[in-house]
Amino acid sequence: MRTVDVAITGYGRIGREIAGMLQARTAAYRERHGVLVRITGVCGSAAGLVDPAGLAPERLAARGSFVPGLTGDAFLEAVRADVLIEAGPSDYRTGGPALGYLRWALGRGLDVIAVSKGALVLDLRGLLRLAAGHGGSLRFSGAAASALPTVDLLAHSLAGATLEGFEAVLTGTTTFVLDQMATAGLGLADAVALAQARGIAEPDPNFDLDGWDTAAKLVIIANAVLDAGLGLDSLPREGIGAVTPCDMARWAAQGLAPRLVGFVEHDGGGFRAGVELRLYGQDHPFAQLRGSMKGLRAVTEEMGALTVTGGASDPRATAAAALKDIEHAVAARQ
Amino acid sequence: MRTVDVAITGYGRIGREIAGMLQARTAAYRERHGVLVRITGVCGSAAGLVDPAGLAPERLAARGSFVPGLTGDAFLEAVRADVLIEAGPSDYRTGGPALGYLRWALGRGLDVIAVSKGALVLDLRGLLRLAAGHGGSLRFSGAAASALPTVDLLAHSLAGATLEGFEAVLTGTTTFVLDQMATAGLGLADAVALAQARGIAEPDPNFDLDGWDTAAKLVIIANAVLDAGLGLDSLPREGIGAVTPCDMARWAAQGLAPRLVGFVEHDGGGFRAGVELRLYGQDHPFAQLRGSMKGLRAVTEEMGALTVTGGASDPRATAAAALKDIEHAVAARQ
Repeated sequence: MRTVDVAITGYGRIGREIAGMLQARTAAYRERHGVLVRITGVCGSAAGLVDPAGLAPERLAARGSFVPGLTGDAFLEAVRADVLIEAGPSDYRTGGPALGYLRWALGRGLDVIAVSKGALVLDLRGLLRLAAGHGGSLRFSGAAASALPTVDLLAHSLAGATLEGFEAVLTGTTTFVLDQMATAGLGLADAVALAQARGIAEPDPNFDLDGWDTAAKLVIIANAVLDAGLGLDSLPREGIGAVTPCDMARWAAQGLAPRLVGFVEHDGGGFRAGVELRLYGQDHPFAQLRGSMKGLRAVTEEMGALTVTGGASDPRATAAAALKDIEHAVAARQ
Repeated sequence: MRTVDVAITGYGRIGREIAGMLQARTAAYRERHGVLVRITGVCGSAAGLVDPAGLAPERLAARGSFVPGLTGDAFLEAVRADVLIEAGPSDYRTGGPALGYLRWALGRGLDVIAVSKGALVLDLRGLLRLAAGHGGSLRFSGAAASALPTVDLLAHSLAGATLEGFEAVLTGTTTFVLDQMATAGLGLADAVALAQARGIAEPDPNFDLDGWDTAAKLVIIANAVLDAGLGLDSLPREGIGAVTPCDMARWAAQGLAPRLVGFVEHDGGGFRAGVELRLYGQDHPFAQLRGSMKGLRAVTEEMGALTVTGGASDPRATAAAALKDIEHAVAARQ
């Protein structure tokens, strides 16, 4: 039976969730694709574990058995893998270790799955070129709104249509905060505190509130689907930090729901793109978003408009998005 | 340059639309995939046209030049093709000529794209087995709600998640009729007449109104995604023919919107499936469907619920769905 050896770089909550789900599905992969999927190495920022025969769940659970220093170049030298999953932190300034991991794996023709966003925001075009040049592939559902199909919908489901543009609610935290302000009458700070208490917002919520998270995902999606050449720093960007209860009351009286969206529209030969707070009437699908739901609305020439909403935001949903990429990578090699 | 020769069986509105869009995209296919896509044959029920060097748009437009009798076995003997697109009428009793065309092409390892539904409803499992056994493929976006991604969403975008079930509004006509009854206060007959006047309903609207159209699409989708083994005749099925203005008024007073949906749910080791008139609160995405829009809501274990809505229903949108299948077929051969 063909083996598919998987290495995971970045071994925090998401990395562990991916490893657990992957191992739970060993039998399913064997039955569905006739392959034996093994995890041959994992590493965090300071330590790692490698075994070409595959790491059993018990060994992965015993963090004490991780080898100090087995990370970075030392990890890459030791590990043997067909698939590399990058699930470390996102560094939007330099790409961090993730960028090195991705370039190393793509330069060797591996199938690569990125969950972290930094390297993709900085150099998606270069990474895709590297994949094409070495017979590998790069997939990144976990970095492009995870459980909400974004690149899938735009590039796969709309492959037969001409895309005129799209707008998307890509950050669960901002939807939750705006919805709590609207429905529970909370002020911004209280709504943010509630989002933190529920584990929806990060301890530092400003990355989400200031629109950076939406902007990063928009850059990845638009560059992947339209080769739009967007950059994070040059993207016009708005946040929700200045929204007041007074604003909310005025919009509610007009029947409008505010949502933070990323958008891209064809504009002459190029693209107009940005992150904006937009107001939607109650019959718009984005006005119906509750909790930390996300949404994407695409407009096409031949098929009209298409909207997808939903997408849980927890580590399990993100891991399931990465596992989708594995399914596609394994199927494409058959 | 690699040539991709396409034959089209069934040359009515949809078939002609597909041929036109395909020829308009010749340059795009060359640039994107490095292939020369040619139409080497088309046939209707009584006549056809074949040319191994490719048929120019002018020749396809001149129906007078079609050769009488060049259809069925005679057409298949004469044509040389890598891809067969079946766009004839749907025969749900015997499969009609479409079933023969599909079996012939799949038995020769062609990439096959079905737009008609009859053969798929009768024998999807057998056709898929034939495709797998001869190195070909079978795609059918145009037969599974066209511009609304259904199989795409369930099989591709949710590949990493465990599907618990789905419900879907699959027939544009019934949504239009119910929405007109609710918003314009029309009786059923008047709403149907309006749908016919707008070209949304067929001259014989009963196939849609009685739930057969929804049932046929549900059978195809559920059998494709879940290998559910559903049959058209044994599927519990409801229509909208008995809905009265009095029902509509009562539901409106309760804030509910009726929609005809097909559904599949895991039930023990098997599936519970059917076509039902269901009532939705105003915060449900299906209640927001207007015009002839369709929708699908999937529930998964890992990713929560996911809803897609939209999907124009005209011949152009259906043709674009078939062209999506061509993109995927061409990409998979590279």
